[in-house]
Amino acid sequence: MLIIGELINGMYASVGKAIKNKDKTCIQELAIAQQNAGASALDVNCGPVSRNQVEDIKWLIETIQEVTKLPLSIDSSNVEVIESGLKVNRNAAIINSTTADQEKLDKLIPLAIKHKAKLIGLTISSKGIPQNKDQRLELAASIVSACIEAGFPVSDLYIDPIVLPVNVAQNQLIDILESIKEFKIISSPAPNTIIGLSNVSQGTKERKLINRVFLNLAIGSNLDAAILDPLDNELMQTLITAELILNKHIYCDSFLTAYKEKS
Amino acid sequence: MLIIGELINGMYASVGKAIKNKDKTCIQELAIAQQNAGASALDVNCGPVSRNQVEDIKWLIETIQEVTKLPLSIDSSNVEVIESGLKVNRNAAIINSTTADQEKLDKLIPLAIKHKAKLIGLTISSKGIPQNKDQRLELAASIVSACIEAGFPVSDLYIDPIVLPVNVAQNQLIDILESIKEFKIISSPAPNTIIGLSNVSQGTKERKLINRVFLNLAIGSNLDAAILDPLDNELMQTLITAELILNKHIYCDSFLTAYKEKS
Repeated sequence: MLIIGELINGMYASVGKAIKNKDKTCIQELAIAQQNAGASALDVNCGPVSRNQVEDIKWLIETIQEVTKLPLSIDSSNVEVIESGLKVNRNAAIINSTTADQEKLDKLIPLAIKHKAKLIGLTISSKGIPQNKDQRLELAASIVSACIEAGFPVSDLYIDPIVLPVNVAQNQLIDILESIKEFKIISSPAPNTIIGLSNVSQGTKERKLINRVFLNLAIGSNLDAAILDPLDNELMQTLITAELILNKHIYCDSFLTAYKEKS
Repeated sequence: MLIIGELINGMYASVGKAIKNKDKTCIQELAIAQQNAGASALDVNCGPVSRNQVEDIKWLIETIQEVTKLPLSIDSSNVEVIESGLKVNRNAAIINSTTADQEKLDKLIPLAIKHKAKLIGLTISSKGIPQNKDQRLELAASIVSACIEAGFPVSDLYIDPIVLPVNVAQNQLIDILESIKEFKIISSPAPNTIIGLSNVSQGTKERKLINRVFLNLAIGSNLDAAILDPLDNELMQTLITAELILNKHIYCDSFLTAYKEKS
């Protein structure tokens, strides 16, 4: 499973401050800590306070590359910011993300091809957030079609069903879990599936518990990737154990530590 | 979800001792504690040390009935013991269990009909433990057929796929999870599904974690019932949260306590 650490994001106060002050140590420590905890890639997001995201993303990526070779997920809704990040990125890259809007797809798919990057496609468009499974599948299909048409390998595409908070869209979570399974039958080879986990618990009082249980259910739906907090030890233990039960790594008594040594 | 508390079982040293010494307090405290923790039924098993199970099961049931009206799951592989328990039982009853062997079915289905009891059917026979999903489905189908033929309502039947320990049959756990889903398409109305949870972690070093994650996956497969330790607080929190995500009870900020107050 592709585990993308979510912590290098300017929306967190300490990271926002580090970006502002160009404090490399803070960012590099976060990179190393997430890697040691089992992250197989790192998300990089300047956050809302950055005044110059085109420059800040470069600084972030260059800073992180000094300490790790993990793939970087360049996270912005702004195409120029992603392009700027890709230019300095020397690790494997993940573009996070395109929507299903044609205008976005027309810009980001060629960029992914040019930089041999993986691509995250959100099942969302300028018309808004999908309200049910059918709308999610329709948006996913249009992203997959655009990739095939442009010659981008679907095996490098990660479709995100858009996870909504349990306290505002409880009745959609079953649809989201089923979408993860059904995205797989859109094409052959199938696209990968990904979620931004922490959305599910936004605004609730039991965030870690809800994150953990939802991730467990999503892994049961054969999820391929998640953006999450790898420093949440119970979350990582749940992930490792769910993969063990689904026979994705071999049982040994010390399977929890064996997993981290392997990664 | 039907949560059957597993703790009144003579295989636990303290319970075995209480049965031997006819110590009502120990048994009644366990009954109340499990009820308060959210159990919706209680398993009752004399365990291997009982010298006279036919009498001991009566004593256990009469003792438990003094303090709770929860349904009791009368747990024995011996038909005479089950019959003895049913005779004194005044609460709702669950027969735990029949196998798929015709001889067992011929005795236990009429007993379930006579006592208006629910019936747990294990997908196992004198030929041994099933080795894959097809064998589980075949055994389940023969139990369902026997119930229909005898006029026992399939809606009162609980099929158990036989959970095996992850350290000895890791590659079967996916089959077991899929069996839980597929038992539902054997008949209409569908049988219910049940697991004996703690088997999955037998002999491992991370029992609670493995139990919790497997239960979470099984709930994702729409499991109807489980025999488990309701005093394992993290396990119960996982169960409640998984049901919340699957929209089985309505979100409120205090959903964990709300669930226990309701039950």
